[in-house]
Amino acid sequence: MTTYNAPVDEMMFLFNNLKDNKNYNEIDKYKEINSDLVKDILEQAAKINQQIILPLAKIGDEKPCVYENGIVRSPPGYKEAYKKFIEDGWTSLSCDPKYGGQGMPKTVSTFFEEMLSSASLSFKLYSELSIGAYNCILHHADQKIKDKYLPKMVEGKWSGTMCLTESHCGTDLGLLKTKAVKQKDNSYKISGQKIFITSGDHDLTENIIHLVLARIPGSPPGTKGISLFLVPKFVVNDNGSVGPRNGVNTASIETKMGIKGSPTCVLNFDEATGFMIGPENKGLSSMFTMMNLERIVVGIQGLGISETAYQNALAYAKERKQGKANNSKNGEADIIIKHADIRRSLMNMKSLIEGQRSLAFWVSQQIDVSLNHPDKKIKTNADEIVALMTPIIKSFFTDIGMEITNDAIQVFGGYGYTKDQGIEQLFRDNRITPIYEGTNSVQAIDLVYRKILNNKIFEKYIAQLSNEVKDFAKENKLSLFADKFFKYLELLNNFTLWLGEKNKSSKDDVSAACNDYLKVLGYIALAHSWLKILKVSHSKLNENKTFYEDKINTAKYYFDKILPRVQSHYLSAITGSDTMMKSNFN
Amino acid sequence: MTTYNAPVDEMMFLFNNLKDNKNYNEIDKYKEINSDLVKDILEQAAKINQQIILPLAKIGDEKPCVYENGIVRSPPGYKEAYKKFIEDGWTSLSCDPKYGGQGMPKTVSTFFEEMLSSASLSFKLYSELSIGAYNCILHHADQKIKDKYLPKMVEGKWSGTMCLTESHCGTDLGLLKTKAVKQKDNSYKISGQKIFITSGDHDLTENIIHLVLARIPGSPPGTKGISLFLVPKFVVNDNGSVGPRNGVNTASIETKMGIKGSPTCVLNFDEATGFMIGPENKGLSSMFTMMNLERIVVGIQGLGISETAYQNALAYAKERKQGKANNSKNGEADIIIKHADIRRSLMNMKSLIEGQRSLAFWVSQQIDVSLNHPDKKIKTNADEIVALMTPIIKSFFTDIGMEITNDAIQVFGGYGYTKDQGIEQLFRDNRITPIYEGTNSVQAIDLVYRKILNNKIFEKYIAQLSNEVKDFAKENKLSLFADKFFKYLELLNNFTLWLGEKNKSSKDDVSAACNDYLKVLGYIALAHSWLKILKVSHSKLNENKTFYEDKINTAKYYFDKILPRVQSHYLSAITGSDTMMKSNFN
Repeated sequence: MTTYNAPVDEMMFLFNNLKDNKNYNEIDKYKEINSDLVKDILEQAAKINQQIILPLAKIGDEKPCVYENGIVRSPPGYKEAYKKFIEDGWTSLSCDPKYGGQGMPKTVSTFFEEMLSSASLSFKLYSELSIGAYNCILHHADQKIKDKYLPKMVEGKWSGTMCLTESHCGTDLGLLKTKAVKQKDNSYKISGQKIFITSGDHDLTENIIHLVLARIPGSPPGTKGISLFLVPKFVVNDNGSVGPRNGVNTASIETKMGIKGSPTCVLNFDEATGFMIGPENKGLSSMFTMMNLERIVVGIQGLGISETAYQNALAYAKERKQGKANNSKNGEADIIIKHADIRRSLMNMKSLIEGQRSLAFWVSQQIDVSLNHPDKKIKTNADEIVALMTPIIKSFFTDIGMEITNDAIQVFGGYGYTKDQGIEQLFRDNRITPIYEGTNSVQAIDLVYRKILNNKIFEKYIAQLSNEVKDFAKENKLSLFADKFFKYLELLNNFTLWLGEKNKSSKDDVSAACNDYLKVLGYIALAHSWLKILKVSHSKLNENKTFYEDKINTAKYYFDKILPRVQSHYLSAITGSDTMMKSNFN
Repeated sequence: MTTYNAPVDEMMFLFNNLKDNKNYNEIDKYKEINSDLVKDILEQAAKINQQIILPLAKIGDEKPCVYENGIVRSPPGYKEAYKKFIEDGWTSLSCDPKYGGQGMPKTVSTFFEEMLSSASLSFKLYSELSIGAYNCILHHADQKIKDKYLPKMVEGKWSGTMCLTESHCGTDLGLLKTKAVKQKDNSYKISGQKIFITSGDHDLTENIIHLVLARIPGSPPGTKGISLFLVPKFVVNDNGSVGPRNGVNTASIETKMGIKGSPTCVLNFDEATGFMIGPENKGLSSMFTMMNLERIVVGIQGLGISETAYQNALAYAKERKQGKANNSKNGEADIIIKHADIRRSLMNMKSLIEGQRSLAFWVSQQIDVSLNHPDKKIKTNADEIVALMTPIIKSFFTDIGMEITNDAIQVFGGYGYTKDQGIEQLFRDNRITPIYEGTNSVQAIDLVYRKILNNKIFEKYIAQLSNEVKDFAKENKLSLFADKFFKYLELLNNFTLWLGEKNKSSKDDVSAACNDYLKVLGYIALAHSWLKILKVSHSKLNENKTFYEDKINTAKYYFDKILPRVQSHYLSAITGSDTMMKSNFN
């Protein structure tokens, strides 16, 4: 089984030193969220994740969810753990106090999301979509619905789902067929089949609140005719109690390569009673409130799983003896962490993970600003930054998650391929993250077409980066890093100009370059994060030499070893798309 | 379930056009292996692989091998298929006619190895190590042993294993403890435990011939005191019949992430009777005859699995409708192969697979020359080329196999993550290939330290490449490709010089660069293969325009999109190892 120690110190380092966002610091209600409070929360979070949730990972893999006679049963122990999980209030962490939440900022809840992903992604998924559904209802439903559904969802007694996909449409929601027919009492009868519904049915909560995309007869074709409905598994009585079963049934659950402790359901809606959320035919845009934040959380899943993979590979490398290191003197086998190549692999993981955590922290602050800042312009600006960063966090972190879990298996050698070590499970569990909530390629297309080519936000972002790094460059110890940063930033800028040009003449060139572009921007955003860490580390060096020297060393590794990847992505992408479009795929 | 059509045309293209090796063509006994004969063999091979072996892949994954009361049972249907497999003579394909073999060259048997890997890696592994054991016995055992064991192994009635690994030593065989004590009759009693033994026990053959590395008491420590022994599961009587059970028992089988249809055994040797193969204390070098050829076969596994992944992703892309392509006119959803990004992904696969197959074909010719050429100098030279190429084929092909199976899942979207499609199984099955027969990092270290830094063969290889490509450069249509090739070759040469320099001053810099170096050499070797394909394709263009234009287009894709990866590997590697060696891994 894997082990896991929540990296509370790393998280507190960010919280204490990189809350560098002036706008974030202006949010009144977060001024009282001080370091001591956050540390206390993270330590409590570490405890439940390490002690109670971590063991559920292996259990869920060995004894997956079961579907029998229309009923879905969660793996052994999940029910008990979930009970404790909601009793301790973890589902309410970032929710509005008005509905029973604790009102914690994203900066804090993102740390918790990471820990939970590190401990057991399968278990996490039971409550994860509830937060998404909560957000969607909070922002788009009328007050009556909020009062009726939100408190139980915040408490965790009810969970939520997102019902988008149908068998013929995943990425392309314009094709969806589920029907919603209006009733005299203004409710709707929902009919159709939804697939790949995470936590679509299970036995952990009293009720499940489905958010369902459907089409009202006569509405416009494509994405412009889609509305959003709240459809509870059990109808909720006016007094808030759970009433009779609604017309939603589970047809089957998927047999998957990973996250086996999480039920992925086919749901049949058969004239199920639903209530419209948000305006008619604007369902997709309401749903995207939920989708966008959810995409960031999926990125955090990749980060969390990477952390566990790294910790376990590191522990194994410190204990396994094999071969002699280059500086070996006694002629006996060394622990493998003495070998340069194993260290390379571990440093790859470490420099990517720490850079990602820092970037995620910065984006979390932007989310907090976008939701809570009093100044509307600042709010909008932050919202756009979040929109720009969403595909990066989602795709880049989950792809890197594949790289890191793959490399971690390799550190274990033959043992990594057996089930005993748990490391191969991380590889399989993480494999869903580049797929769900919009495949990584779709994220890349979203990034390029919606956020780079048709938006001013990118220029603002780059200007902000450049200004910051120009300041850094004045400091002797940072100037070499800043120079390297600007060298690669120039490639990014050339790449962006190239996209703009090609967008006029050859859209296929642009489409074929999106994945490479996303990666280039990802690596540069991480370099920026490392520069900020470097600045703090140099200025605080004497406070904790071991800690900050390690940061400086890891930053240098990132700039030396990882950042050059930008080069190949750029060179490959700008050759265009002629050959691939021409191929007849014989 | 996956589908598979053996790429006989692609293979025949290579056999007919790229048997460009003068030395190979001088081997007398292969002169009669003509195109018609090979085509006939490949078509028969296609039939059994597509019809009988392919379905075993899924069966083995769903109903893995079972270990009960000391006995290992293969998955349902494996026994029947194996019976047909040996009846049709497939185990004897490349073996010496003296022992019942068909004497086919490696050029042909490598195609068969690929097909078998494409159909079912688990099933393949039952006979694969037998060929390795056969080779080892053929080259190192005395005539009596050859006569006693080889005919049954060639026939496939007996299978073979390689017993190297022990729980505390995989990569570092110098640590092994299994003991061999000499008896009065010159036989040995072997005692110890071996782990990770592929096909270590099963019910497909009458007997299993283990080749076991062990230490004779009093022999030198480390790798210099290891001898090799033949230890049959059942003692073989003087008349060749199977006698009583030997002291070899199966303690358990591993539960693994993939290749579940293949039993990976823990074997206990308890005073088992064994016979020494080759000279005392030279066991490792005898075993390496087998290991080296086996490593190439593992690379071919990666290629074979990649082919199946590509074929299935391609078929799905031609059928699944989702989204509108850039040139879409009717406003309806297009099949996803119309999307540039999907085409990019498929072309990545295609250009890598076809390049690899061509490189493998060339290396197969070198193996044939190294085994059969009458001129000793030519033989030795070919042997060194094979030694140089072995780590490339093993590591590069299997790493690329992970990339391709990963990308194939992505083409399938959510469906790729479910068990129904079979595509995720390819990803799991292939995951063993970068690990077994020496991890890919160990291959990279072998490449750099044994074959680049301490050997003249690399210079000869590069000189040969350069001369050939200089010739190509004279042709108008190839000159641009040749220029690009030389640009990247210069990076390789710089990289090689850098290794040579660093080897004097900082071995850790060298060790940390081995993986990048192997990749750089791999991509350049593939570029060379593509240049040869290009040359043929231009000269034969009018014979089959569709086929050769496709080759030319795919070559261009490779040079545009894949070859630039060299750049990042080079830039990253030459920054050295300071940061990784300095890290204290807090």
